[in-house]
Formats: sequence, structure tokens, C-alpha cells
Amino acid sequence: MPVVSITLLPGYAPDTQHRMVNRVAQAVRSVIDTPEAGTTVFVNEVSTYRRDGKVFSGGRAAHPVASEVVQSFLQAMQERDLQKAQSLLHPDFRMCFPGSVVMHNLSELTAWAAQRYSRIGKHYEQFEESWQGDATVVFCHGTLQGTWLQGAPFEGIRFIDRMEVRGGLIYRQDVWNDLAEHRQA
Amino acid sequence: MPVVSITLLPGYAPDTQHRMVNRVAQAVRSVIDTPEAGTTVFVNEVSTYRRDGKVFSGGRAAHPVASEVVQSFLQAMQERDLQKAQSLLHPDFRMCFPGSVVMHNLSELTAWAAQRYSRIGKHYEQFEESWQGDATVVFCHGTLQGTWLQGAPFEGIRFIDRMEVRGGLIYRQDVWNDLAEHRQA
Amino acid sequence: MPVVSITLLPGYAPDTQHRMVNRVAQAVRSVIDTPEAGTTVFVNEVSTYRRDGKVFSGGRAAHPVASEVVQSFLQAMQERDLQKAQSLLHPDFRMCFPGSVVMHNLSELTAWAAQRYSRIGKHYEQFEESWQGDATVVFCHGTLQGTWLQGAPFEGIRFIDRMEVRGGLIYRQDVWNDLAEHRQA
Amino acid sequence: MPVVSITLLPGYAPDTQHRMVNRVAQAVRSVIDTPEAGTTVFVNEVSTYRRDGKVFSGGRAAHPVASEVVQSFLQAMQERDLQKAQSLLHPDFRMCFPGSVVMHNLSELTAWAAQRYSRIGKHYEQFEESWQGDATVVFCHGTLQGTWLQGAPFEGIRFIDRMEVRGGLIYRQDVWNDLAEHRQA
Amino acid sequence: MPVVSITLLPGYAPDTQHRMVNRVAQAVRSVIDTPEAGTTVFVNEVSTYRRDGKVFSGGRAAHPVASEVVQSFLQAMQERDLQKAQSLLHPDFRMCFPGSVVMHNLSELTAWAAQRYSRIGKHYEQFEESWQGDATVVFCHGTLQGTWLQGAPFEGIRFIDRMEVRGGLIYRQDVWNDLAEHRQA
Amino acid sequence: MPVVSITLLPGYAPDTQHRMVNRVAQAVRSVIDTPEAGTTVFVNEVSTYRRDGKVFSGGRAAHPVASEVVQSFLQAMQERDLQKAQSLLHPDFRMCFPGSVVMHNLSELTAWAAQRYSRIGKHYEQFEESWQGDATVVFCHGTLQGTWLQGAPFEGIRFIDRMEVRGGLIYRQDVWNDLAEHRQA
Repeated sequence: MPVVSITLLPGYAPDTQHRMVNRVAQAVRSVIDTPEAGTTVFVNEVSTYRRDGKVFSGGRAAHPVASEVVQSFLQAMQERDLQKAQSLLHPDFRMCFPGSVVMHNLSELTAWAAQRYSRIGKHYEQFEESWQGDATVVFCHGTLQGTWLQGAPFEGIRFIDRMEVRGGLIYRQDVWNDLAEHRQA
Repeated sequence: MPVVSITLLPGYAPDTQHRMVNRVAQAVRSVIDTPEAGTTVFVNEVSTYRRDGKVFSGGRAAHPVASEVVQSFLQAMQERDLQKAQSLLHPDFRMCFPGSVVMHNLSELTAWAAQRYSRIGKHYEQFEESWQGDATVVFCHGTLQGTWLQGAPFEGIRFIDRMEVRGGLIYRQDVWNDLAEHRQA
Repeated sequence: MPVVSITLLPGYAPDTQHRMVNRVAQAVRSVIDTPEAGTTVFVNEVSTYRRDGKVFSGGRAAHPVASEVVQSFLQAMQERDLQKAQSLLHPDFRMCFPGSVVMHNLSELTAWAAQRYSRIGKHYEQFEESWQGDATVVFCHGTLQGTWLQGAPFEGIRFIDRMEVRGGLIYRQDVWNDLAEHRQA
Repeated sequence: MPVVSITLLPGYAPDTQHRMVNRVAQAVRSVIDTPEAGTTVFVNEVSTYRRDGKVFSGGRAAHPVASEVVQSFLQAMQERDLQKAQSLLHPDFRMCFPGSVVMHNLSELTAWAAQRYSRIGKHYEQFEESWQGDATVVFCHGTLQGTWLQGAPFEGIRFIDRMEVRGGLIYRQDVWNDLAEHRQA
Repeated sequence: MPVVSITLLPGYAPDTQHRMVNRVAQAVRSVIDTPEAGTTVFVNEVSTYRRDGKVFSGGRAAHPVASEVVQSFLQAMQERDLQKAQSLLHPDFRMCFPGSVVMHNLSELTAWAAQRYSRIGKHYEQFEESWQGDATVVFCHGTLQGTWLQGAPFEGIRFIDRMEVRGGLIYRQDVWNDLAEHRQA
Repeated sequence: MPVVSITLLPGYAPDTQHRMVNRVAQAVRSVIDTPEAGTTVFVNEVSTYRRDGKVFSGGRAAHPVASEVVQSFLQAMQERDLQKAQSLLHPDFRMCFPGSVVMHNLSELTAWAAQRYSRIGKHYEQFEESWQGDATVVFCHGTLQGTWLQGAPFEGIRFIDRMEVRGGLIYRQDVWNDLAEHRQA
């Protein structure tokens, strides 16, 4: 046990269904101590469905995968494709960087970063998702490498990003890293 | 839609079942764009269950809530109850602090911290869980307040902890914060 | 076929569950030409249920049986227990009698009837319910017997009542009968 | 709650399935006080089904909608298309009109009516169905308009028809109206 | 896969439910090549059930285990408790022994056997059931040991019994063995 | 009751599904005393299925029908098509004939039989299957007809075969018959 049956309207892509059975299995296994071997989840498609006095004929849209949205954003930033990066941001986007520096758009960020290092890259160790109903929060951590303003290189400096994704767009980015630890030294 | 039916062996506490329906609903809603009003999850208890050639008569244990484990640990640390804090750590526990400082036991941590501040407290804004099957990762972020070694007070300094919980014990703790940003200044 | 599974929260009386499986079977058989022998309906009680972001622990109230409400009303009228009859009427109650006579309270009705016959009784042949979601409409037909104002007896005069029941109270009563046919003759 | 799952053999038209989920929802809501928002009904098609020692490969026929059968009959009568009207009647058809006038075929009815009014039409307010397993009873009420034998017009005279439909044919028609009330005056 | 859900009325003993999930798993695995690990069967008890126009409140009786009936019979025969053995036989019981010897009651059998050996015992290797709907056929095979009429002992002589069980009683017994092979030698 | 729902991955042939619902019905009816009319079994195909951490997209192979495997083998033997008969045998095939004669290949059998009769044929009365999880055991019984070595004909001599089928191949054959009874006489 457990056996989980997910009843859906027809029309969801296999990929969406796979993601759903995987996530539901993980949610269930976060609550009870059951091995993978004993965890069964399947999707059953109905032919007609009625709720709230209405008959529905097709399911609602699938969300994009939140960590893929975040990866696309991070890659666009890396490639300095600010237009693409901007397209993945929620109108109310807000970011917060070390030192409690709060910014709202990417040009601000670029200007702020230019005062701290001349080049920066990220090596990602892990993307992790927290499913919270209306939002999915993506955490990614890894290490930074780059060049200080004075030209000295750095690498292996720890960072973590917390990215709140709502409706497929990044609503909030919070960044922590050890740059100051190293700058200091 | 969707309608999710979770079939369980009898014997899980109501609290465990509530947690399960809530988490499964969140997992489902992380995949498709369905409102709470259209998301139905229920638990159905079977009277007899057979898998893998065996008949089971009662469910497996429920996990403790990972963020509660983390909260207990953090509170024990705050209250300097190192014995209780230690009891919540996995035998292979490992922690990593700003500057890539890796430690394995709490007395190391106490000694290290004593060189950085004379007193520290945490104000928690949010605990967030990432359900990953065999592990649940708890992220908590908020602000630090305390006193520098030189006696000056500080407060509102951002931090985030990443705590990996396995089998009800903390396996790994990673800490990021802005202390260096402020110490520097 | 068909096999109908009704999943309910626990706590509904056996009587309520019986009524539900019977009515659902009738609803299904009104749509497809399936014999009783092939029509299976059962009630399954869940142990935990969540919808619309809330976990529910017990079901909602059962409605009184609409045709029993109507029968109680008709019997109270027959026994001239106007207080009891009144207690079964919706605040917005409205009745309509032959000749499009619209009245709103039972004393009006008594006065109106006193001009048409000195005594009246009803013999009921059938109570039939139409299930319409927020309302159940009860139709009852049969024959009237009684005494005309001039003292002559009558009997076997056809009538039909249409009674709209909402929230367990009679919202509207419409009456048709053949009294005028016979009065005329 | 409730969640109702209707398991059917494949092959029923979407329209039939829609009708079924709607009617089942109404039947359920006639028993318990549950809002539309909390009432979920869906149809699940099986791929193989066995009962009574036999494997079935397709569902049985859908019934025509009883109130549509009645409407077709009433319209054919209105248009004096007696042949079409007759085709909708059960071989054992029996009708009963005000004054307990019992007739069995449409020509009798035409002759009888000719002695009461020279022209008649019906304005329908509502068609209501009572689902009773082997039969569905359709009630329709509204007002009559037309011309008396002497040439005077009338309108707004209340009527109600009770039509018992079995196997898609009208088995019995009972009619009540206020014509005598008005003829008298 | 597969996942098999058996919906039962309440009241069946745990032992009966265990037997049912085991047998259903075996039936399923006789058709498709699925390992035990992937075969899930559970019993779900309903709270109300309606079929064929009737509401049922408790399940029907469980059958005795057919191979246990056969074992009781064989043991009673071994212990020469003919009364008990007889009580396990169907009124239409018929047995057929090597040489197509047909008998209907146990005293016939005793007389017939007395002409063939002075003592006989059975060593059972296996009881196997064939589930056939209205009947379960039990096959048991093993070896015979005993004493010939002339006093010589024998052992290890192969036999097989085919026992048809209907309604908990043995309806027919067919016996094959190698006694003649050995008598001959 | 009962109502049995078998949830399968898509892709099993209708024939396989029919066999499965039939066998499951027989397994259920071997345990409880329920008539065919009250025994409902259906197959429900899922669109996505996950167990043991893996998402499966199609079902596993269906087994050949064990009694058909046995019939093919017996017919090939009858037609002296030893190559075909051999192809239906498991590599570890073992047979045991009256007198505890154990053999492992068909040529041994042919040689052994040649010493006992010059011609033999089988008339089958019944094939019966015992479903045992990893194996299905097929029992067939009937009568033998043929010619003794000395040329005399025989017929109507009882036999029973027990054939253990694993993975679609015959693993073991045990044979009992009354030939010795008759040879003796």
C-alpha cells in the first residue's frame, strides 16, 4: 500500500501524467514510511465529468515544470539574453540579493553586479521543488566561479537561490551566497 | 477534476491522513492548473490487502513531519540543549556553513560560532518542504539577530538553511547567510 | 452494467444511504435501458476527504423525504391542525387553486374553501417525485370526496397537487381538480 | 462530497453520458443537502465487463428523453398530425380527461374535444420528470388559449398533464385543467 | 499492474477475505505474466449495496475450503468414522474406482476394498483446487501403503483422487492408482 | 456483490481480458456462495501507471492458455509429431507413468509404451485447471482405447493426466490409468 488512483479528464499529455504519478508518489511517501515497491499510482481517464453543475469535456492546462522555467531563466541570464529572461518574470517580480538588496528589474541587477565582479558563472548541484498549491518554489544550490573586479579569479563559492514560480512565471527570487566571505578574506 | 482516491490499510491516524490528502492535492496542483475547488482527494481504507504474495493487516509507520523535526532541532540549539539536538541528527550528519566550513558534530559548531559572534538568534519567516521520496528537504529562511564578538548588536541579517531529513533524522544541514556582508561593512 | 459507486463521508444513516442508492439507480435507469438485475449501486465511506482546500470530517445533513413532508402537510390540513401545517411551509409559500386563485396563507385558503364545499377529503393514489437539484417537486393525484355547500355528497372527483419542496419546506402548491366539472353538472 | 463514479460499457453517446451525470447528481442532491460545487459525478468506461456469467462487449440502448417524447407528441397533436402522434403511443395507451373521461385513441379525443371548444392551444411553462425505474413520468403544466364553441376566445386557463412514458412510448396521459371553472362563469 | 479491487458487503471474516485476495491473485497471474511484486489485490467493504432492485445489508455465506472438506472426509475414512465421512457427502454422491467400479455409498466401498487389501493408508503429497464456479474440484495425489490380503506389505504406490465439491459436500470421487500394476507383479 | 474491478495497463487483447474476468469470477465464487447474477467483474484500463519508482507504459505478456498447451502436446503425441511435442516441454521436463516409471524424454516414452501396447488413443472427458501462481496445473481425464501387444483391442479404460505448466511449457506430467487392471484380467 498505498494504491493511488488519479481520475482525470482526457487530454493530458503522457508527459504530464508521468509527472503527476511521480509527484503524487513522492507526496505520499513523504507522509508514510512505504517503499517504492509498495507504492502504486495510476491515472484513470474518465469519459464524462460533472462538478459544480457543469459537464466538462477536457482538462485544464498543465503547468510548465517550475524548475525548467527557472533553468531557462538562469541560462538566459548567463547568456545575457535579457529579453528572454524578462519574459519568464511575473509582472510583480522582486528579487533580493545578499545584503538585503531588493531590485525589480534585470537592468538594475546588471548594474549592481557590475560593481561586485566582472564575470560570474554558476555551477548547479541540485534543483529542488517545494509544491505549495498556488506556487511552486524552486531551490537551486551550487557554486559560483568568475572574476573579481580587480581581475582575480574565484571559484567554488557556495550559493543558493530560492525562486517562487506562479502561473509559470518567476514571482520572486532570493539569493544567498558566500561571496562576501571570500571578498573579505 | 482531478479526483484522487488513496487506498490505505486501516490504522493511520486522522492527522496522518489529513497530511496525506493535503500533500497529494499540492502535488497534483503543482502539475496541472486546477483550482482548489476542483481538486478532490480522499482516503479509502481497505479491509484486506495483498501484494507481493503477502496479506498485510496494518499500514506502515507514519513519518514525523520533517519541518517539525527541523524546528525541534533549531529550538534545541537555541536553548543550548545539545543533547536533544544531537538526538535528532542522523549518525552520518554533516553540516556546511558559510565559507564552506564543514563540520560533523555540534560541539565543533559551538566552537566555530564562538569565534564569530557572542550571541545569535533566528527569526523564521517560512519553512518549506521538498518531498523527494526517500528524503524530505526542509528549507527555512528568515533573519538573524545577535551580538558581534565586539559587543555590537545586529539584526535583520538574512539566512537560509537547507536541512535534509531521512527516516526522521537530519542527515545534512547547509547554511547560507549575509553575516559576512555585514561584518565587512 | 452500470456499476455506480457513491463515495460519501461517514455518518449518513443507513436509511439515507438506502434512499440514495435507490434514487441513483432510478436516475441511471431513466437514461439507459438496463434491467434492475444489471444495475449495481453501492456506497463507499471514506475515512478522510479534502476538497476546495479543506479537510471535511463528516457529511452534510440529509434532506427530509420531500413526499413525506407533503404527506405531513396534507394530513395536518385534513386534521385542521393549521399550526403544524404552517410549520411545513416556506416563508415565501404561495398556492394556486382552480380558477387561478392565488393565496399565501392557510386562513385565506380556509375562507375560500368555505364558499365552495362544506367538507372535503382526499384519497391519494400516488406520490411522485421530480428531483431537480435545489428543489424536489412532489406530485400527488387521487380523488376528492366531501359534501357540497347545499349538503349533497360527492366523491371520486379527480385532483392533482404539485408541491415544490425546498430545504424541507413547501415553497409552492399548485392544485388542479374536476370540482367545477361536477359542480356544473 | 459526494463523489459518484458510474462505470459503463463503452459506446454510449456523449449526450447520453451527460444526461446520466446530470440526473445522478440531481438524485444524489435530492437526498443530502450538498451544494453543486461539492457534487462530483463522472463516467468511467470499462474495456471488459462480466456479469451473470456472461461477458458483455457493448452497452444497452439509451432511452429517448421522456420529456422530448412528450413534447413531440404534444406538438404533433397541435399540428393535427395524428399519425405521428399515434406513433408515440404505447399499444395499451389510455388517457383520462376532466370529468374522468377515459379514452384510448386519438380520434375519440378529437370527437370529444369538438364538443367543448372549436380551437385550443397550449402554452407550456415547465416539463418535469419523475424517474421511476421502468417508467418515467413527465408532468407539464401551463396555460390554455383557444376559442369556445360559441366563438368567444379564452386564454390563460391553467392545465397540467401527467404522461407516463415506458420504453420510449406514452403509456398513459392524465389531464387536468380549469376549463370548467371558466365555462361555468 | 494489475490492481484488483474487490468490493464486498461487510461481514466476511478476515480469513475469508484473505482467501479471496489470494485466489484472485492466482487467477489473475494464471492469465498474465506478472510477478507477485506487481500484483495488488484488496478488499473494500461498502456500507450500502443495491442490485436487482434490492438493498442488501450483509454478504452471503462463505464456502468451506473445498480441500479441507476433502481432507476431513479422507481422515474420517482413515479413522473408519463412516458416520462423519457420510456427513460430508452430497445426497447424489457417486464414486468411481480403478476398473470403473462405480459405487454410491461407503459400505459398498468397504466391502469392495475388503476383497483387495486388508489395510490401506494414504500419504498425501499435494492437494490442488480447480475453481469452476458452481463446483470446486480437489485433486490430491500421493502414495498408498498397506497390507495385501495375503499379508504382504506394500508402500509407495502412486494414487490420485479427483473430488468434486458442491455446496460444501463431496459430489463425486474418482480414484486412480497403481495397485494393479503392483498386484500384478 | 461482489463487484471486482481489475485495473490493467492498456494493450491486453480482448480475449485475454475475457479470460481474466472469467477466472477472477470463478476464484471469487470459489470462496463465497454468490450466484453468477450477483457477480460483477470488469477491467479498467489506466492511461499511466507507476509502481516501484517506475512508470510503465504497457502490460506484460499474456500466458498461453495452459490447457491449450496441454492439448497441443497431446495432439502432437497422438499424431507422432515428436518434434512439435518436444517444443512444448520445459528443459527440466519429467514424466511419471504407472508403476512409478520416471522418464525425461519422449523417445524413452515411445520405447516404454512399445512394450505395453501396439496402439493407443485417448478420449478426453474434461480438462481442468488449477491456478497456482507461478504454475498452472492441468488435469485431464477420460478413457483410453487401443490394441494390446497381442492384437486384442481395448477401450473405455480410465486415465487421468496431471500436467504442470510453467511459463507456457509443460514442466511435469504424471499419468495414472487402469491399464494394469485390465491387462491383469
